[in-house]
Amino acid sequence: MKPGYVRPLDLKHGRIDMNHGAGGRAAAQLIEQLFLPAFDNPWLRQGDDGAVLPAPPPGHRLVMATDAHVVSPIFFPGGDLGSLAVHGTLNDVAMSGAVPLYLSAAFVLEEGYPLAELQRLARSMGEAARAAGVPIVTGDTKVVEQGKGDGVFIATTGVGALPPGREIGGRQARPGDAVLLSGPIGDHGVAVLSKRESLAFETEIRSDSAALHGLVAALLAALPEGSVHVLRDPTRGGLATTLNEIAGQSGLGMRLDEAAIPVRPQVEAACELLGLDPLYVANEGKLVALVDGAVAEAALAALRDHPLGREACRIGEALADPQGFVRMDTRFGGCRVVDWLSGEQLPRIC
Amino acid sequence: MKPGYVRPLDLKHGRIDMNHGAGGRAAAQLIEQLFLPAFDNPWLRQGDDGAVLPAPPPGHRLVMATDAHVVSPIFFPGGDLGSLAVHGTLNDVAMSGAVPLYLSAAFVLEEGYPLAELQRLARSMGEAARAAGVPIVTGDTKVVEQGKGDGVFIATTGVGALPPGREIGGRQARPGDAVLLSGPIGDHGVAVLSKRESLAFETEIRSDSAALHGLVAALLAALPEGSVHVLRDPTRGGLATTLNEIAGQSGLGMRLDEAAIPVRPQVEAACELLGLDPLYVANEGKLVALVDGAVAEAALAALRDHPLGREACRIGEALADPQGFVRMDTRFGGCRVVDWLSGEQLPRIC
Ligand SMILES: Nc1ncnc2c1ncn2[C@@H]1O[C@H](COP(=O)(O)OP(=O)(O)OP(=O)(O)O)[C@@H](O)[C@H]1O
Ligand SMILES: Nc1ncnc2c1ncn2[C@@H]1O[C@H](COP(=O)(O)OP(=O)(O)OP(=O)(O)O)[C@@H](O)[C@H]1O
Ligand SMILES: [Mg+2]
Ligand SMILES: [Mg+2]
Ligand SMILES: [Mg+2]
Ligand SMILES: [Mg+2]
Ligand SMILES: [Mg+2]
Ligand SMILES: [Mg+2]
Repeated sequence: MKPGYVRPLDLKHGRIDMNHGAGGRAAAQLIEQLFLPAFDNPWLRQGDDGAVLPAPPPGHRLVMATDAHVVSPIFFPGGDLGSLAVHGTLNDVAMSGAVPLYLSAAFVLEEGYPLAELQRLARSMGEAARAAGVPIVTGDTKVVEQGKGDGVFIATTGVGALPPGREIGGRQARPGDAVLLSGPIGDHGVAVLSKRESLAFETEIRSDSAALHGLVAALLAALPEGSVHVLRDPTRGGLATTLNEIAGQSGLGMRLDEAAIPVRPQVEAACELLGLDPLYVANEGKLVALVDGAVAEAALAALRDHPLGREACRIGEALADPQGFVRMDTRFGGCRVVDWLSGEQLPRIC
Repeated sequence: MKPGYVRPLDLKHGRIDMNHGAGGRAAAQLIEQLFLPAFDNPWLRQGDDGAVLPAPPPGHRLVMATDAHVVSPIFFPGGDLGSLAVHGTLNDVAMSGAVPLYLSAAFVLEEGYPLAELQRLARSMGEAARAAGVPIVTGDTKVVEQGKGDGVFIATTGVGALPPGREIGGRQARPGDAVLLSGPIGDHGVAVLSKRESLAFETEIRSDSAALHGLVAALLAALPEGSVHVLRDPTRGGLATTLNEIAGQSGLGMRLDEAAIPVRPQVEAACELLGLDPLYVANEGKLVALVDGAVAEAALAALRDHPLGREACRIGEALADPQGFVRMDTRFGGCRVVDWLSGEQLPRIC
């Protein structure tokens, strides 16, 4: 684009208008001046319709995962839509045991959205991607009229490389597997909701939004190949829904120990106030691992050795159960079935 | 999911509610009963956070492209948001010369959207994907409140395999390249706008929305490796903007022959009525190819031999020009500079 032809973007006071989505000069300018500097990497700079990239190493399989992100509010304690859009998709790639390689990002912008906020978001995405070592290699920018969107939505897709012989997934769970959790639950959902409802707690509750592929790599490196059966990030629907998904996929039941499931006291308190059950609240920086019972202690040690797994716990086990129930021994010595999330609990949490 | 637990989806009269985006039972039901049957393929059926897929053949590079689709109206003559979301992204992968392998699809649904329409869209996507031979292997479903979205937005990402040695892209254009166009321009934009404005023309104008990877394969198979320098689909911003992008990337100018650029008479007439210039109107089933001048006739023949290239034409050539201008010899014997799209022309056209 010949820069002499256009007024520079007013990144301080400017706003998104319909032209920024029309694919012409204004769109090219927005990409060149706002997105490219934030995401900077040679693949994106190719500037073609698609990015041409080195393939995974020989023998590896591809892994592909996608998520649209519509969290409201866009900025919240501990993160924002941009970093969340990077972490969320990286984590879904990582949950197969793959090494994430590349990300794409497609934006739906609402007319009138401030460029300064968009730049803040893009920079946050770029930082999250660089910190994770996974470049945003291709993108897209669409604009909808005021009242037809809600600021910014971001859909990210991730591609990764899965080493030969690694088989991790919901159907790999086996009776006797230990159920491990990498840390306390509920932080993300409560942080977003507190901000949305303008609730102030004594201690600020921050989202746990984080990229988990490093933690996964540490776990896998510490254990014999084949002993990690399932990995999953308990996002929307929370821990309870995630465990029910795995039970459904594997045809097994689970037995949990309520007292072993970590919840920060301030999250517990906030949940009580808000009428939420932390078991159903979304997390964006935690993982559940089902590992061979024999390696449970080694797995826990490996998780705790990593900054994102310091508070990892063993919370239960998988077992044969024709009904596929997730049951929990309660703190009070009872036992109850933990079902799927069935109400909406928290809309637009990620 | 245990089906005994839920009322079946009312696909006739039901509507999207916030629960469908909460990641719990309602979301799982929507995916299982509406999306999975429409997209059906073994990768998607894995049901894990990401899809595990065979990698490209040895020596191939990866290509990755993404687009959010926000076209309004969602259904238009010749296509709909669903098939468009498949074609648009496949085409961006194909424009690098890669063979598209996999698609992902992330949905942002507005509360209240009719399930019957969503099913129609999903089926249309599934059909387009099957016709193209490229499965939708992973997905995501988010819901936003009424008035915070506009029915449905779909972000698709495509991954493809690029054979060794193939280098196609905007920077590969060379002086003397012939500029080829695969058929008449403006159909898509005019079809969408006519529907949006409820204009009725004597002959219905239909979108050209189509998957172009077969046409690309036919072109590449007919020519010596290395003689196709640039491929691009003239979508938003139209032919004029696409050629300016290529000029900008390659540092070359172009010379076009207006009389050689095909526009259907009814599109021409509609554009006049609507105050549009067909050069700037979006296409979704056309490609521009810059090929070595020496193979131009063979390239044209190969394009015309394919159902999607019957009306292919040679419309100009690339040449050295330090200013990087796209110039056009007009029908009336003059010459003018064809600039980038600078106004909005048509918002929400794809
Ligand atoms: N938000 C963004 N961040 C980073 N790069 C982007 C963004 N939007 C677009 N791009 C990049 O800009 C270039 C042009 O994108 P554009 O969407 O115009 O191409 P296209 O997909 O071929 O056209 P269309 O979207 O009309 O189908 C591509 O290289 C794309 O990766
Ligand atoms: N619209 C859709 N079409 C097809 N498959 C879908 C769709 N939405 C989700 N899926 C599939 O359903 C499964 C569960 O998706 P879900 O989005 O709940 O997982 P997740 O991304 O791990 O969670 P979250 O979105 O909360 O981060 C995945 O296998 C996904 O590919
Ligand atoms: Mg394109
Ligand atoms: Mg996810
Ligand atoms: Mg695009
Ligand atoms: Mg997940
Ligand atoms: Mg495109
Ligand atoms: Mg998802």
